[in-house]
Amino acid sequence: MSEVINRSQTKEIIQDNLDYTMFSWSKQKGIDPIAVKYAKGVYLYDHDEKRYIDFSSGLMNVNIGHGDQRITEAVVKQMQQVSYVTPSCVTEVRGEIGKKLAEICPGDLNKSFFTLCGASSIENAIKVARLHTGRHKILTRYQSYHGSSYGAISASGDPRRIPADSQQAPNFIHFDLPISYRWNYGDENLLKESVHQLERIIAYEGPGTIAAIILEGESGSSGCLKYPKGYLQQVRRICDDNGILLIADEVMSGFGRTGQWFGFQNHDIIPDMIVMAKGITCGYLPFGCLMLSDRIAAKYDDAVLPLGLTYSAHPVSCAAALATLQIYEDDNLIENAAVMGKYVDEQVAILRQKHLCIGDWRNTGLLGCLELVKDRETKEPMAPFNAKPDQMTVMNKVAARIKELGMYTFVRWNYIFIAPPLNITRDQIDEGIAIISEALKIADESLK
Amino acid sequence: MSEVINRSQTKEIIQDNLDYTMFSWSKQKGIDPIAVKYAKGVYLYDHDEKRYIDFSSGLMNVNIGHGDQRITEAVVKQMQQVSYVTPSCVTEVRGEIGKKLAEICPGDLNKSFFTLCGASSIENAIKVARLHTGRHKILTRYQSYHGSSYGAISASGDPRRIPADSQQAPNFIHFDLPISYRWNYGDENLLKESVHQLERIIAYEGPGTIAAIILEGESGSSGCLKYPKGYLQQVRRICDDNGILLIADEVMSGFGRTGQWFGFQNHDIIPDMIVMAKGITCGYLPFGCLMLSDRIAAKYDDAVLPLGLTYSAHPVSCAAALATLQIYEDDNLIENAAVMGKYVDEQVAILRQKHLCIGDWRNTGLLGCLELVKDRETKEPMAPFNAKPDQMTVMNKVAARIKELGMYTFVRWNYIFIAPPLNITRDQIDEGIAIISEALKIADESLK
Repeated sequence: MSEVINRSQTKEIIQDNLDYTMFSWSKQKGIDPIAVKYAKGVYLYDHDEKRYIDFSSGLMNVNIGHGDQRITEAVVKQMQQVSYVTPSCVTEVRGEIGKKLAEICPGDLNKSFFTLCGASSIENAIKVARLHTGRHKILTRYQSYHGSSYGAISASGDPRRIPADSQQAPNFIHFDLPISYRWNYGDENLLKESVHQLERIIAYEGPGTIAAIILEGESGSSGCLKYPKGYLQQVRRICDDNGILLIADEVMSGFGRTGQWFGFQNHDIIPDMIVMAKGITCGYLPFGCLMLSDRIAAKYDDAVLPLGLTYSAHPVSCAAALATLQIYEDDNLIENAAVMGKYVDEQVAILRQKHLCIGDWRNTGLLGCLELVKDRETKEPMAPFNAKPDQMTVMNKVAARIKELGMYTFVRWNYIFIAPPLNITRDQIDEGIAIISEALKIADESLK
Repeated sequence: MSEVINRSQTKEIIQDNLDYTMFSWSKQKGIDPIAVKYAKGVYLYDHDEKRYIDFSSGLMNVNIGHGDQRITEAVVKQMQQVSYVTPSCVTEVRGEIGKKLAEICPGDLNKSFFTLCGASSIENAIKVARLHTGRHKILTRYQSYHGSSYGAISASGDPRRIPADSQQAPNFIHFDLPISYRWNYGDENLLKESVHQLERIIAYEGPGTIAAIILEGESGSSGCLKYPKGYLQQVRRICDDNGILLIADEVMSGFGRTGQWFGFQNHDIIPDMIVMAKGITCGYLPFGCLMLSDRIAAKYDDAVLPLGLTYSAHPVSCAAALATLQIYEDDNLIENAAVMGKYVDEQVAILRQKHLCIGDWRNTGLLGCLELVKDRETKEPMAPFNAKPDQMTVMNKVAARIKELGMYTFVRWNYIFIAPPLNITRDQIDEGIAIISEALKIADESLK
């Protein structure tokens, strides 16, 4: 009886959502969403009490895991004092989170401009870079994602910008960067050619026209497309040689995801600005930050900083961020990400022996992605870049099976992401890998 | 002794904020911010226990007043269940707030796309309008503000876009709209000429190139620059005649601020989309919504909606919004805004008799603004449009006196805003008006 009530309630909840709200990046018909009732650790539970292991940490943001009531406590405490002040007022918590972020960031990256999300941080980074250099062009990588607002989507080398392509903002230049798996001329040439290509594009565009290069600290939703070893150091040098600013987009790769506070720390460089969101509050509340170097910030001692938003330095978001950063430290989550990342690598190595459909596995810490192929020799992807629905037949079946077996994760084109919360255990990794293994049988079958 | 400790603690809090965080729309040196410790109703309290009456509701957003613990309760309840799900999942609260907003909105405005803030709602409105019409131009009013991200700041006819003017996105056209106070050719001609001017600009630009006209439901931070009576109905007609969409930016004027749910309801029109933020959660948490008509939304039944953001339909923000809307109803705040707005009008009428520096008073509900002038005959503003610091001498003294006397409000150029929380009482209005009256003596003195 209670199951009947549950199912009827679930149906009503889903129907209200479908009737009155719009769904991102989807057709509105034919959506079959999970109705989440509660969540705890690495698990989501729907209204029918079905459990899903969350193998993509939401959208690679719930790094500390779900349902951590230490965040709730910090939020309540702040809301009992003051929930909102205008960004021209100060609060104790704003100073504290600013100080904490300056401690975490290397070099002279000490000045936080607080925003709401990755997109608003990117927008402000672009604005500051152009004003600081007096130049107009922004260089980014094809197959990168920086957000969906006009500046951010124009900066993105991701096909999500294509539906509104005629609306794009000017002076964004995208460059291609090969990845090891699909590079046919020997690993020893990959770095050299990648750097030469970037140098040529900068020469063609004119170094004096380029304000900044924006790169993800580690590639994320585009498929964890790792940089050639040593590449970011070369980019840092090219930027320095040409008066170009280097902006690290750490929205997805920051806050422990790669086994370091920030993705760029795997590459031994320091950028001029850091774009933060996602892991800074792990999705508990919206929050973002543009971290500026003292050198860039100093310009605004005596000039008006032409940036602003109603919710800049929102006290409750600041409180959630402060509590979140404490949890990374108290629970040793960044170390655990590194250790568990290695364990995932080991388990995927076994998986690759079992499943011919796995072409490549690319991972840093717990930011990993399986690439499925139709053929290991030709490396033909199981679904092509920016696949249309009718090219997703096999992948959609795999995704449906994953969901059926009790896993939530991000499946895109021929990619299956493995990016669970950083507090995941070996047993939970085993549980997730077993589900993926079972689902991959469908892909293996399709090879025959 | 405790006062000494307090003052030393206050100094440290302010110093941390100044050392580690950046302030919007300001030089970073010489900032003298209020350090808010807690807030309740219409009052802010700093760490030295000084009380400030908040006469601008933060940034015209804290409509239900500060420190309402009914919001805290709703937030805690949600956070005990689930704080974050990806926008592809559904939650009970997402359906509830979607349904509630559809009830509040007139006509067939029934489909919510949830965002984070006004800017992200505007950005998405622009994108949808262009995709829906296949046209590229967006028309907006000079002296309007729609947000600071690339699309939103380009749409804004506000000088805050000027510092990054060379970075502006293309295909945004601004038009001028006279206001009654500075129109010299008789009120009977104001509507006619305003409409003719808009029709001419549409003809010059080409009606078939224009996707949408975006207008604030009522003008806000640009100085409550009221529309000529009947203007919005004419704009609605012009839009219908030319296949142009009409988008109402209700970020500041929505949610009871003008004595109606939405500003456009004072003008007896229905727009095609509504841009919402601010009063939807009253700043307790970041949240925004783009409300689409069924007609526009229907396109995405079978086409991919090319919009998305990590925090779309954030469960905790949805919960805060739902509780906020309940408070408007339970506490009769919209009715109170209308009643108290009339009371403010009466008190300002008395104030005008006392203070020669008051040139104009423009108000709808509790969205009001005093305009100070050097001379009532010539109407020369006390500080010009987009005033430089050295043109703000008198206004800065007035603002400093207002703060000293225990009021927080928004002072811009020659404007002093009166837009308190909607639960304000007559006594509290008297208290605020008395402070403004005292401070205006400085402006009166300057006339001599």
